[in-house]
Amino acid sequence: MKKLGNQTYEFQNPVYIKHCHTMVGQKEMTGPLAKYFKDYFIDDTFGEKSFEKAERKMLLTTIQDMIKKNQIHIEDIDLYVGGDILNQLVTTNFVAENLQIPFLGVYSACSSITESMAVAGMLIDGGFGKNILCSACSHFSAAERQYRFPLEFGNQRQAYSQWTVTGAGCMLLCGERCDSPRITRVCIGKVVDYGVLDLANMGAAMAPAAANTLLAFLKDTNTSVDNYDLIATGDLGKLGSDIFRDMLEQENVMIGNNYIDCGHMVFSASEEVMQGGSGAGCSASVFSAYIYHKLKQKKFKKVLLLATGALMSTTTNQQGDSIPAISHLIMMEA
Amino acid sequence: MKKLGNQTYEFQNPVYIKHCHTMVGQKEMTGPLAKYFKDYFIDDTFGEKSFEKAERKMLLTTIQDMIKKNQIHIEDIDLYVGGDILNQLVTTNFVAENLQIPFLGVYSACSSITESMAVAGMLIDGGFGKNILCSACSHFSAAERQYRFPLEFGNQRQAYSQWTVTGAGCMLLCGERCDSPRITRVCIGKVVDYGVLDLANMGAAMAPAAANTLLAFLKDTNTSVDNYDLIATGDLGKLGSDIFRDMLEQENVMIGNNYIDCGHMVFSASEEVMQGGSGAGCSASVFSAYIYHKLKQKKFKKVLLLATGALMSTTTNQQGDSIPAISHLIMMEA
Repeated sequence: MKKLGNQTYEFQNPVYIKHCHTMVGQKEMTGPLAKYFKDYFIDDTFGEKSFEKAERKMLLTTIQDMIKKNQIHIEDIDLYVGGDILNQLVTTNFVAENLQIPFLGVYSACSSITESMAVAGMLIDGGFGKNILCSACSHFSAAERQYRFPLEFGNQRQAYSQWTVTGAGCMLLCGERCDSPRITRVCIGKVVDYGVLDLANMGAAMAPAAANTLLAFLKDTNTSVDNYDLIATGDLGKLGSDIFRDMLEQENVMIGNNYIDCGHMVFSASEEVMQGGSGAGCSASVFSAYIYHKLKQKKFKKVLLLATGALMSTTTNQQGDSIPAISHLIMMEA
Repeated sequence: MKKLGNQTYEFQNPVYIKHCHTMVGQKEMTGPLAKYFKDYFIDDTFGEKSFEKAERKMLLTTIQDMIKKNQIHIEDIDLYVGGDILNQLVTTNFVAENLQIPFLGVYSACSSITESMAVAGMLIDGGFGKNILCSACSHFSAAERQYRFPLEFGNQRQAYSQWTVTGAGCMLLCGERCDSPRITRVCIGKVVDYGVLDLANMGAAMAPAAANTLLAFLKDTNTSVDNYDLIATGDLGKLGSDIFRDMLEQENVMIGNNYIDCGHMVFSASEEVMQGGSGAGCSASVFSAYIYHKLKQKKFKKVLLLATGALMSTTTNQQGDSIPAISHLIMMEA
């Protein structure tokens, strides 16, 4: 590896995203990306007794389907790196128990998929494994009742709120050359806090983190936004994306039509989802389905994925702390 | 690096624990390790408005003291890898915001210190940094009310329960040779679940994870327990340590006087602490103070540290799930 600037690492050895798989809920299948999502489930509980168990079944099924479909031998997987947004990372922990692969749990809220990919990529580049499994996921009903209100309460949603994506994305990173997209650089984020206090306003809390990491990456690599076919943030939503654009403009970085936000594009616009999707499963599923597909087809050749995570807890919020956020960046080439 | 067996990695490049620092609460200063703990605070709130903010101040102070005392330039620290046991990793996240070092949050409950050291060590061995900061911490009052009961409830403690350590440990891992203990091997744990359902019985839930990882490591490295001056588990407590010994004996591994448990030794025996200490700060502070000191003095020459983490949440517990656990192992040489 080669360190560029303060936060960016360039891989010297091959790190390929050999396989990807994703599963989503019913609502995501009514959105514009439905044709890219292959597997889904209708009942919010997935036949389980709780939303938390449904999330777990969704993640396990996603990984098992990827393993089965691609005839991967589970004993060939050196490590599993993953995270989710339920307390104590329980979805990923319980799935790791089922898989029996040596496991590293990571947490950066909705940036967990890019943190997993960054850690796994660095370990492969450093020679610590030929095959590393990564994953992230979220479930609307499980997340909503943990972070905000009981579903039965039926609260009115703020105009600037987002809707947690029910979805899981997983991938197998591989240290051998293959005909798949390659991870070439990663940029590790710093935690930033612009003083947002409102738990419903995730986009505003996370936009500064995405801007901070993208600006650091552009500086470290001496590149401009025009050098990339696609720059995708994870789950800023419509409002957060606008703030992100504004913050970049203030630094004279004009981001154009090559910019998308996974949260903004995953749902059809409605009063229910307001600013769009959020959650660790948002960037994980949109990347694993839509972006990965386009990279494979070489429709996109150089992609930056910046998932963003809000790092508060309900306790810090109740105690009056503002919401810190982080964004880790992954650069991929077709 | 060189992979040994299925779970163990041997570093080929220097990875040294250049500096360590620790801070504990008042109760820890009345225990047998008091002379190794240099910094402590008396008031449980550390002058803050909540226990959670006190935990944060404790971790930040510990890291800042290490930086100041050893004249470390913060800009020379490439990465910060750390975790804690509060929901959403808030203690470490907020401290990372303060430090402004590129940050990777990790979670494996009370095994967070060895996960941090393993990830940081692998990244240094792989060339991803010369200096990486690691930390873990816990605070009795913050942990107790999050995981079990409000403190005001004054519940009776079970005979097999443990007492969360109020303490923080941090260290600077360094890729340049120096006169400090060296990390030579790490073993990444698998998640195991032996069906323990009782949130108060952490020792029984975590002992199988420690046994599982130690047996894997001994097999991978073709060594026996007699090859090490010290084998330390993180926070099994008295009961958990006995279960750990029993499980090893069943596999014909007879662990002798070279075995200690950080949780068992951190407090003086009392009805209050029952089986001893627990929490991410237990192994972090006992290692950073006592074990590191003895390694520096070359009283211990070859040490295995196996911190152990119970990976349930209160929700999984209330939904009837048993408690999965993990243990990551670090091998150090004086």
